[in-house]
Amino acid sequence: MEDSHISLAHGNGGRFMRELIEDIFARHLSNPDLDVQADAVPLDLHGRDIMFTTDGFTVQPLEFPGGNIGSLAVHGTTNDLAVAGSTTKYLSLNAFIEEGMEVEVLERIIKTLADSARAIDVQVVAGDTKVLRRGEGGGLYLATTGIGIRGSRTLGLDRIRGDDVILVSGPVGDHGIAVLLAREEFGLHGNVSSDAASVLPLTQEALKVPGLRFMRDPTRGGLATVAHELQRATAMGISLSQSHIPVRDPVQSVCDMLGYDPMYLACEGRVVAVVAPGDAELLLQRWQALPQGKNAAIIGNINAQGAHVLLQTVLGGERILEELEDDPLPRIC
Amino acid sequence: MEDSHISLAHGNGGRFMRELIEDIFARHLSNPDLDVQADAVPLDLHGRDIMFTTDGFTVQPLEFPGGNIGSLAVHGTTNDLAVAGSTTKYLSLNAFIEEGMEVEVLERIIKTLADSARAIDVQVVAGDTKVLRRGEGGGLYLATTGIGIRGSRTLGLDRIRGDDVILVSGPVGDHGIAVLLAREEFGLHGNVSSDAASVLPLTQEALKVPGLRFMRDPTRGGLATVAHELQRATAMGISLSQSHIPVRDPVQSVCDMLGYDPMYLACEGRVVAVVAPGDAELLLQRWQALPQGKNAAIIGNINAQGAHVLLQTVLGGERILEELEDDPLPRIC
Repeated sequence: MEDSHISLAHGNGGRFMRELIEDIFARHLSNPDLDVQADAVPLDLHGRDIMFTTDGFTVQPLEFPGGNIGSLAVHGTTNDLAVAGSTTKYLSLNAFIEEGMEVEVLERIIKTLADSARAIDVQVVAGDTKVLRRGEGGGLYLATTGIGIRGSRTLGLDRIRGDDVILVSGPVGDHGIAVLLAREEFGLHGNVSSDAASVLPLTQEALKVPGLRFMRDPTRGGLATVAHELQRATAMGISLSQSHIPVRDPVQSVCDMLGYDPMYLACEGRVVAVVAPGDAELLLQRWQALPQGKNAAIIGNINAQGAHVLLQTVLGGERILEELEDDPLPRIC
Repeated sequence: MEDSHISLAHGNGGRFMRELIEDIFARHLSNPDLDVQADAVPLDLHGRDIMFTTDGFTVQPLEFPGGNIGSLAVHGTTNDLAVAGSTTKYLSLNAFIEEGMEVEVLERIIKTLADSARAIDVQVVAGDTKVLRRGEGGGLYLATTGIGIRGSRTLGLDRIRGDDVILVSGPVGDHGIAVLLAREEFGLHGNVSSDAASVLPLTQEALKVPGLRFMRDPTRGGLATVAHELQRATAMGISLSQSHIPVRDPVQSVCDMLGYDPMYLACEGRVVAVVAPGDAELLLQRWQALPQGKNAAIIGNINAQGAHVLLQTVLGGERILEELEDDPLPRIC
């Protein structure tokens, strides 16, 4: 492409748009099933049961320590399939590009997206680009839709029982704080990288644990929001132990300074699992044996007698963890 | 929902977002396969071959005579599957909603989207919403991704031969001009409705014609852009006859006043088909027998000796129809 910035003509269906798609998208995403000339693409799923999910991405800034909106768009959607016990095969990609965006940045992001997909053996087979007028977009928004092969295990909120144990695969809030610091609006600098990554190694290990009931990735709204989903779905109490929930020191420090609670901050590479009491240690060991899970922890349990999300505080007290209301960090994912 | 306008808190993963999804999206889109609590949804495709496509929607204004961004989001994606010879079964939906949007407008749009999907027996089974800060969005952007059952006919650009005949299912440019007039920025008023609609009745009829080679819906970039795709893919000439291309009088009048060429304007409910010479009349008759196709016409042919897209003008001359460069109408779809 000759141009260094995106113009409205890159969105009109004509020559510039075709060149943008060929030079940036098709070149990096190339695979046997991607046909930029086709209206729709056939998928070979060999008659297997499939799973379907979608996610949108608006993170600001577009690039941050540990990733960018491109890697996030792959991990966000494939992680939703992974925690459902599936393996992603195919993705579609929508890009809403703001007029004036630097082509170099766009290319870097699409290259990262392509690399992230390739690393987990996922093919981007359908796509669409739209260009938004200057001032009508935030640089770049992405949406990805995933098709996965359904796994043999049946998981679900309805399988959760009283006394089941809750685990998290690693420290919470890294993604939220990494993005916050990358915005530089608070004049803070820190050494926090986003945890954004594929959770597939974690979910594959968890699927080997017979007593596994349910998994979820604590993204927008963080661990507290997953806890509230568990509470609502089971109509039982959720007890979490603050001292057992892993939070990195720099994440806690930034939270203390700015008044954020890491319980509500987005993760993009963690898994929350609910497991039968007898298998909690087994899952913990399996996770801790993985590089992605070395800080995994048992953080609480389902309480058949309770009716709230309760946090046992470090000081020995107990408080209700409220459902998130105000948005602590817009455009975090 | 109590609020009349969208706030950032509707995008944070917490209570307001849950209520937005339950009250607006899940209520209108409700179907047995939509589970707003699930990370991913299983699809029952009975082992059949599937087709996959995606499209983004940014039309401005969000509502226009003949449709809104919600109906467009259903028709745009299901039409891509229809022209590929497939029938859509499932859609996913991404909504990027700007802070400050009126909830009433959002609800009207999602209701239209749900009605449009229901009318063609399509289920919206996965979704995601993001809220953009005021000034970082254009009200509402949508993306839909479709899964269809692959039809038995094999169509494709590679099946086109010299002397094949080109048809269009109805007048071109209605959508482009309807949206343009709805913007009211030119002080023009007119009685033009968008042609936005499902093309499934048209494609189903066309699939019964043995000599059918290829179909495409002339959206962004219009008929001229489809002609250029045909030219590039076949490396043959494309001859179009201006006097045979149906254009409604009010569409032509607005084009004459503002200097637009209807050949480049978006349609959202038309089909361009390429068919073997001996079957062109059969397809024409089949289309003309449908309410959607009563103005269908044979508009040109593939010319094995040529190398350009040529338009025989009404005055008897001939001119090269150039590939679209500048964007005539941003945010048209």
